[in-house]
Amino acid sequence: MGNGHGWWNFDTRGVRDAPGFFSSFEHSRRSIVYIAPSGVQKERILPEHIFVLPFPQPPSPHADRTFLRRPKQNLKESACTPLFWNAFELRNAGSCIHTHSQHAVMATLLWTGDTFTLSHQEMIKGVRIGGTGQALSYLDTLVVPIIENTPNEEDLKDSMGEAMKRYPDAAGVLVRRHGVYVWGLDWEKAKTQAECLDYLFEIGVKMKLAGLPAVIES
Amino acid sequence: MGNGHGWWNFDTRGVRDAPGFFSSFEHSRRSIVYIAPSGVQKERILPEHIFVLPFPQPPSPHADRTFLRRPKQNLKESACTPLFWNAFELRNAGSCIHTHSQHAVMATLLWTGDTFTLSHQEMIKGVRIGGTGQALSYLDTLVVPIIENTPNEEDLKDSMGEAMKRYPDAAGVLVRRHGVYVWGLDWEKAKTQAECLDYLFEIGVKMKLAGLPAVIES
Amino acid sequence: MGNGHGWWNFDTRGVRDAPGFFSSFEHSRRSIVYIAPSGVQKERILPEHIFVLPFPQPPSPHADRTFLRRPKQNLKESACTPLFWNAFELRNAGSCIHTHSQHAVMATLLWTGDTFTLSHQEMIKGVRIGGTGQALSYLDTLVVPIIENTPNEEDLKDSMGEAMKRYPDAAGVLVRRHGVYVWGLDWEKAKTQAECLDYLFEIGVKMKLAGLPAVIES
Amino acid sequence: MGNGHGWWNFDTRGVRDAPGFFSSFEHSRRSIVYIAPSGVQKERILPEHIFVLPFPQPPSPHADRTFLRRPKQNLKESACTPLFWNAFELRNAGSCIHTHSQHAVMATLLWTGDTFTLSHQEMIKGVRIGGTGQALSYLDTLVVPIIENTPNEEDLKDSMGEAMKRYPDAAGVLVRRHGVYVWGLDWEKAKTQAECLDYLFEIGVKMKLAGLPAVIES
Repeated sequence: MGNGHGWWNFDTRGVRDAPGFFSSFEHSRRSIVYIAPSGVQKERILPEHIFVLPFPQPPSPHADRTFLRRPKQNLKESACTPLFWNAFELRNAGSCIHTHSQHAVMATLLWTGDTFTLSHQEMIKGVRIGGTGQALSYLDTLVVPIIENTPNEEDLKDSMGEAMKRYPDAAGVLVRRHGVYVWGLDWEKAKTQAECLDYLFEIGVKMKLAGLPAVIES
Repeated sequence: MGNGHGWWNFDTRGVRDAPGFFSSFEHSRRSIVYIAPSGVQKERILPEHIFVLPFPQPPSPHADRTFLRRPKQNLKESACTPLFWNAFELRNAGSCIHTHSQHAVMATLLWTGDTFTLSHQEMIKGVRIGGTGQALSYLDTLVVPIIENTPNEEDLKDSMGEAMKRYPDAAGVLVRRHGVYVWGLDWEKAKTQAECLDYLFEIGVKMKLAGLPAVIES
Repeated sequence: MGNGHGWWNFDTRGVRDAPGFFSSFEHSRRSIVYIAPSGVQKERILPEHIFVLPFPQPPSPHADRTFLRRPKQNLKESACTPLFWNAFELRNAGSCIHTHSQHAVMATLLWTGDTFTLSHQEMIKGVRIGGTGQALSYLDTLVVPIIENTPNEEDLKDSMGEAMKRYPDAAGVLVRRHGVYVWGLDWEKAKTQAECLDYLFEIGVKMKLAGLPAVIES
Repeated sequence: MGNGHGWWNFDTRGVRDAPGFFSSFEHSRRSIVYIAPSGVQKERILPEHIFVLPFPQPPSPHADRTFLRRPKQNLKESACTPLFWNAFELRNAGSCIHTHSQHAVMATLLWTGDTFTLSHQEMIKGVRIGGTGQALSYLDTLVVPIIENTPNEEDLKDSMGEAMKRYPDAAGVLVRRHGVYVWGLDWEKAKTQAECLDYLFEIGVKMKLAGLPAVIES
């Protein structure tokens, strides 16, 4: 994970609100993917718990994933793996983060349509077009698609991919009653995107609950 | 406490909201129970402050508990001890955690009946049937019984036990205006259950206060 | 400050909400009082910044305080000093803590009379009669007097003293639009009282804002 | 940054709510200015990432800034630089802090006019006249001007300067939908001002949302 020190210090509101439940991964050299195990206490993960996979995955007659290394312990790779692949393949991302942030979940409950929209917040300038491009301007309206949750996390792959294609400028994908997927060119940038979006979900929820409009015309 | 390191890092919202007031214990080898002392600053507990008891307790003509070791200081074992025993005996739990989380308390105030119910939240998948069995699915409705508080904590033993028998799938028991009891096969799993349930109490309370329905039909 | 280690770890919600603004002191040997300096960053206090006073203060023809030691730096003792003295003299306390906790302040705004009252909360059992006596029972209603703020903190001495005499069972005194004074037999017990009361102010405020009654008849 | 230790421990609510997004600087010797880089994770800044500038800036035929030292990495100085200069030149400040605190942002949304006003809060006594003068009294009403945000942060320089001249007693300047600028004679005092103001924005927002008046007549 490149600079492990920074990694373990990871401390956004989104992550803190879901301690031990975020999943993340990264392939800084674009040929190797590191994936956290599923269902473990994330604050106690050690390097030997990480799954290592080749990217792209070699063609295979069956659907099994190919690994370069698996933890010796009886662990399973994060169920988010195919969703992380969306970020790698569709956005050329080098890192993807998933959280169950309550700000993200509340945003999907208060924005009942298929997008979260918010305008005129300085922090919007921290969000990048498509998650990996240029930064948005203060005059841009943030639009993050919301997809419906499915019982099996893997089944989100197609709807997440469709949302990413339909909203090519979106820096993340919200999953109703579940959380959010965010990505970036590397883990530092993915973390920054996750922090900016979580801040915007949080203040958007506060504004909505206070009866303030989330989007205003310039 | 097996891996003390992880234990002392224990840092859920529920615990943080009630600093120094949670009680917990564990018997990883199923024949020895460790119990924290009552009414002390939990962040300052040292190993020598822990009570050690045999499990099961040997038959005794009087109701006194049998100890393998008592702290040398003038301390009393947690008043939750008989309630922890419910989790050991009725659920075969290896660890039981009690918190005064304000999310749990607010849930018992906003859900005025005898259960807390919540559906369609991804985090429900982190909760195990009966606290020690298979995980719930996203389509399951979380049901946590709520019992009425009593002036003496020990007097909750019977009503907690009845609630656990009446709701054999429940992963915890809420106590109105008081807090929650949660358990697991070992302390790591009990901690995960406590974190998942606390997240669900918190978001349930937020939803209720925002006028959103806590349970929706599939 | 007896065990300085515990002291510096002091971390209640009340204190965290007012970082650098709580004042506290203690005289564990009943003849020496330690007082923090005023208007400094409390997380950066060093032992040499502490004022040391004899207790009781020797008679003096003028109103000046007598010190056993003053910091060499140009510091002033906490303006709360005469209020701490109330706790020492009227309650035989060994330690007194003052915070600007927003939970305490909000409680004084939502309880517009001259007392904060709350019943049927388990955490009430953590509060001691008069702050230094026996613990309250679950069936007791918590009553904390609220006095009006004054421009000069020292001027609260008389009204705080009157409130303590009028409510001899109260474990603390709230100051409207200001904060709370809490005490205990030693610093550990004062800290526990401060944590319990702050928890109760916080949940009381949440209940009031949610339209729930703060006191119910048994 | 004088005592770097204190600096890195910087931990107000305002900063915590905007992790990695506050900017700050200081010129304790009044001839050298240190400025943080833009768009980086503030918790990972190292001394070699800091820009060092002479103060005042030497006259220059073009608008370029003069530096005594630039980071070797490809970094850009904070976009707040000209705004920090306002605090140095108009208030003789030795340090200026900028945060995106959600309390500040919510305050600018709930106070729709051109000032945030709050009275009768003890913490007002922690705020200094003009940020660097004598402390306010409990009977003073806090007034913080609010300016409108601009797409480019640098463009706030003039309206911030005008607000500082129009409100010479104000200890900070709020920027609508953006955050706040706060200053002090040195970094410790700027931090204290930032903490006091953030506390007051937070409680002001809570009061407004609870339907309580923010300003009362004495």
